[in-house]
Amino acid sequence: MSQDRSSSSKVPIVQTLLTANEEVAADNRLVFQGHGIKVVNIMASPGAGKTTLLLATIQALADRKIGVIEGDVASQVDADLIAATGAPVVQINTGGACHLDAPMIRHGLKALPLDGLEMIFVENVGNLICPVSFDLGQDLNVGLISVPEGHDKPYKYPGIFEAVDLVVVTKSDLLPYLDFEVDTFRELVHGLNPDAPVIVLSAKTGEGLTDWTTWLAAQLGTSAQA
Amino acid sequence: MSQDRSSSSKVPIVQTLLTANEEVAADNRLVFQGHGIKVVNIMASPGAGKTTLLLATIQALADRKIGVIEGDVASQVDADLIAATGAPVVQINTGGACHLDAPMIRHGLKALPLDGLEMIFVENVGNLICPVSFDLGQDLNVGLISVPEGHDKPYKYPGIFEAVDLVVVTKSDLLPYLDFEVDTFRELVHGLNPDAPVIVLSAKTGEGLTDWTTWLAAQLGTSAQA
Repeated sequence: MSQDRSSSSKVPIVQTLLTANEEVAADNRLVFQGHGIKVVNIMASPGAGKTTLLLATIQALADRKIGVIEGDVASQVDADLIAATGAPVVQINTGGACHLDAPMIRHGLKALPLDGLEMIFVENVGNLICPVSFDLGQDLNVGLISVPEGHDKPYKYPGIFEAVDLVVVTKSDLLPYLDFEVDTFRELVHGLNPDAPVIVLSAKTGEGLTDWTTWLAAQLGTSAQA
Repeated sequence: MSQDRSSSSKVPIVQTLLTANEEVAADNRLVFQGHGIKVVNIMASPGAGKTTLLLATIQALADRKIGVIEGDVASQVDADLIAATGAPVVQINTGGACHLDAPMIRHGLKALPLDGLEMIFVENVGNLICPVSFDLGQDLNVGLISVPEGHDKPYKYPGIFEAVDLVVVTKSDLLPYLDFEVDTFRELVHGLNPDAPVIVLSAKTGEGLTDWTTWLAAQLGTSAQA
């Protein structure tokens, strides 16, 4: 069998690609650590409120030096919104790819003032599947689910809930109008990932936002002590 | 250069895969045509209301013989909901893939009573990117966008809006609580796809649902005349 010729012949092509990505992700991680920057990868569906949460976060943590990498298939509408806050931002357009990858981040970093930053948010391409498989060199993974998406999403997309360090339920101001059961959602998340905190918030009304910024500040504190 | 050795060596692997998919999609299309079945591929973000719309559609078109193919990364929660209506349904779990493909559909068809069906809805895996690239053998593509996702989605995911025969805005009952501008959304869609109708509806309240069922009935009528 050809599989016996060498160990490398057993490696499927997708694994080879992922390995190449892992190498660049490791390089990115060294760059971030060298600059003392904490990097948070935000993953969510389209329209879950990633950019709106980032805008509220930049405002709430105005004393922190925050940069943003925006990932989208096309356009720079999100990056324009971030830029209006004064925060350094770079837009990555993937063309058609459903996720960012480590080489894209490496390119994007050249456009950010790394020496002046404490934290970088990476807003990944909007979906719950592909971004989970590609390490970018980040420190933390955060998954957002908006109330209108429904509390059943952990059944359908278990991978993202297993992968994240924190789950944020966004658009809590819509809870009165929808059937999202927060307790059921928490149970489903903790069935997949017992240690992941679940924060419920509305970037629109500000409800729960301090839970999120407190969690972020704790991550930055750990970074400063390291 | 190795590229000169043969014409086939110029073909990237992804194109080879897509060509294989196209061949099976053509076979599927022949099967559908042979049974006089109209197949509608539904594409949308997670939680956009695909299953809820299908449930309302099966109820509204109770005199039509409708089957459903449910696509999800994991679970069969959507298929269970459809099965409770009595409609024939098959669940396809992609494992990790972010879209259905033609061979998956070919397998799924074996579980459906094709001779007794007029229409099959395929609920594709929830995201706005990957499903667009894989022909399944369907007659029609429908893209759903829910009001909470925001009217800016055509900027970020142009591919799906270019590919569809119809755009449905779901969850119109939430318009009073959100900033979704219907006219702006229509303009953005028609900038990408001038001929695609845009229907605004709520499967919850029934508002606009007859626009959708009328469109579907017209497609079935065309099929019967062919």
